[in-house]
Amino acid sequence: MTGAAPRAAAHLESARAGSGPDEKHGDRRSARLSALRSELTSAGLDALLVTHAPNVQYLTGFSGSSGLLLVAHDAAFLVTDFRYRTQAREQVSGVAEVQIGETSLWSRLWTTLPRLAAVRTVGFDSANVSHADYQRFAEAGAPWRWQSTSGLVESLRQRKDAGEVAHIRTAIAIAESALHATVPAIRAGMTEFEVAAILECALRQRGSEAHPFEAIVASGERSALPHARSSARRLRPGEFLVLDFGATSGGYCADITRTFVVGKATQSHHDTYDVVREANATACLGVVAGMRGCDADAIAREHIAGCGLGAEFGHSLGHGIGIEVHEKPLLARTADAPLPVDSVVTIEPGVYREGWGGVRIEDDVHLGLGRTEVLTVFPRELIEVG
Amino acid sequence: MTGAAPRAAAHLESARAGSGPDEKHGDRRSARLSALRSELTSAGLDALLVTHAPNVQYLTGFSGSSGLLLVAHDAAFLVTDFRYRTQAREQVSGVAEVQIGETSLWSRLWTTLPRLAAVRTVGFDSANVSHADYQRFAEAGAPWRWQSTSGLVESLRQRKDAGEVAHIRTAIAIAESALHATVPAIRAGMTEFEVAAILECALRQRGSEAHPFEAIVASGERSALPHARSSARRLRPGEFLVLDFGATSGGYCADITRTFVVGKATQSHHDTYDVVREANATACLGVVAGMRGCDADAIAREHIAGCGLGAEFGHSLGHGIGIEVHEKPLLARTADAPLPVDSVVTIEPGVYREGWGGVRIEDDVHLGLGRTEVLTVFPRELIEVG
Repeated sequence: MTGAAPRAAAHLESARAGSGPDEKHGDRRSARLSALRSELTSAGLDALLVTHAPNVQYLTGFSGSSGLLLVAHDAAFLVTDFRYRTQAREQVSGVAEVQIGETSLWSRLWTTLPRLAAVRTVGFDSANVSHADYQRFAEAGAPWRWQSTSGLVESLRQRKDAGEVAHIRTAIAIAESALHATVPAIRAGMTEFEVAAILECALRQRGSEAHPFEAIVASGERSALPHARSSARRLRPGEFLVLDFGATSGGYCADITRTFVVGKATQSHHDTYDVVREANATACLGVVAGMRGCDADAIAREHIAGCGLGAEFGHSLGHGIGIEVHEKPLLARTADAPLPVDSVVTIEPGVYREGWGGVRIEDDVHLGLGRTEVLTVFPRELIEVG
Repeated sequence: MTGAAPRAAAHLESARAGSGPDEKHGDRRSARLSALRSELTSAGLDALLVTHAPNVQYLTGFSGSSGLLLVAHDAAFLVTDFRYRTQAREQVSGVAEVQIGETSLWSRLWTTLPRLAAVRTVGFDSANVSHADYQRFAEAGAPWRWQSTSGLVESLRQRKDAGEVAHIRTAIAIAESALHATVPAIRAGMTEFEVAAILECALRQRGSEAHPFEAIVASGERSALPHARSSARRLRPGEFLVLDFGATSGGYCADITRTFVVGKATQSHHDTYDVVREANATACLGVVAGMRGCDADAIAREHIAGCGLGAEFGHSLGHGIGIEVHEKPLLARTADAPLPVDSVVTIEPGVYREGWGGVRIEDDVHLGLGRTEVLTVFPRELIEVG
């Protein structure tokens, strides 16, 4: 493939490619830019340099992986490269002017910036500018002051509108249908890679635009690795099998995990599984908008700890999903921020018994005003496969 | 899925997960660490902080997406999180000590660093440390000096050993076999998404461990977008169809592009196609190790310009492939560096006629000492499909 940044925004590219921006989409982008401009005013900024591709996509509709977006109060510029010249003009028409960087996006940005006469203080997202790129700011010259910011656009992206939730629902439907098709095909003796292949084929056949991450198929003692990927390991009877995977529709992600037993489940399988299932159910009932992320996390964590397995649940309870498969807000011990109304988050408790096996059950939930809706419906009973 | 960084190193995870490090692999890692330590000496560094996951993988074998590796002259530490505790210990045994960051990798790094008594000047890779993380260096305290570096490990990764080339050959064989299986299934009226689904299924069925990037299926006027992804557009007779995709084997990537015509090719199709095919053939013959990247790029560019289509070839000629699908060296107008012996690079000239269609033909070549071998063998004649 040509050029740079192969993966970063790979799943975004398909979202709107080939279709011009419709009226409704244009309205949404304008509303998002207005909301951002209010934030700029509050922060004392004349403009924001947006460098993270999912943020650029959210604000302008541009789905390429290479772009620098400058949002001022009365103008917006998207600097991209040759590869995206046609696509960018189609996608961002009406909300931003496209500039093509012939040799470097940055040098083009430096020639564009002086056109914004009122701009002096420019914010940048500290987490999404490399140290190397930060050094470039000095090249811009004297008049500009560069101010570090943190997550301005990410914060806006937390609250999903009805159209965004609809895309996530479609992605979930694709993911669950693919899982229903995959489960009966699983056999002891298959490799994890083979199971991943069946699952990813089923996802694509049902219209998933991309894989937001490689499907995780982890069996036996590898199911106790919370972040295992698939491997050449063969499934054996009497083992846990974790499938953690996503789907993409309209540029938005689903993220779901189910754990199975290959062959016949033992009492130990049921005992461990039930702890996680109860933690998942308790959290799905208890997590509501307005609650702090740490308090949401505690619901599941306290249940697991009460069963004597607290040390075996080492990761956080969940995270937002949307254009990215990992977004704000976080449901974690360290997350003090309240969960916004209309965020869509995962609830994914797990128990990992090193050397033996692990269980994770992950659902996607919409935190409405006073009402939490569990969007995923795939059965949560322990299913024996193979 | 749990935790952070879903995509960055997604295709790495499968590489060696579940298999302990073998003797040979251990030797390779030790040799790589030795080579890096020589670079540190030349650069006046006591240690290097390695933050980019593919670099961590190359040096230690660790395939997780979350890790900070500190390489000093007489020790190496890998700081990772709970999710990877088992995997990390298995994968890096013999070359690095594993530390688990309970709340943050960085805070764990700051408690580990003082154990390296001789370390004062620590290098970091400017392109792979965010501005936000750079601010953390101040937290480490007084004794340490932090020095910006650029691409120390990436430079080592350019020269592939025989084992690495063998993995790339296998990945190419998977990719080409999948393409042979896909071509007869393509029909006018299919969507690009449907073609991508067939291709990705075929890749997985042939053992590709992951997709190094989402398959690009671009038809009609979208084939003139050099960085299009797949879309819901339906293939129509009389159009170009670009397929640009990869495969992964042993953690190493292949990257190949072929362009077809749906239905019957016209003279215009042949005329445009032949320009690119000749540019590809000329470059595959002419590019050799030791040549500067810009001179390699010029071989294809001058051919295309000589045919009057210079303005329609806006991207660079190629890039290295390996653990990442985009690595050093670059074959580009701006690339002054010589192409190292034993690098593996793509050669992918293209011509893009806006609003009509585009052609790209991409091969993978190994630049041996005095001998360039084209590793990809899929036919380069214009094939009519559907």
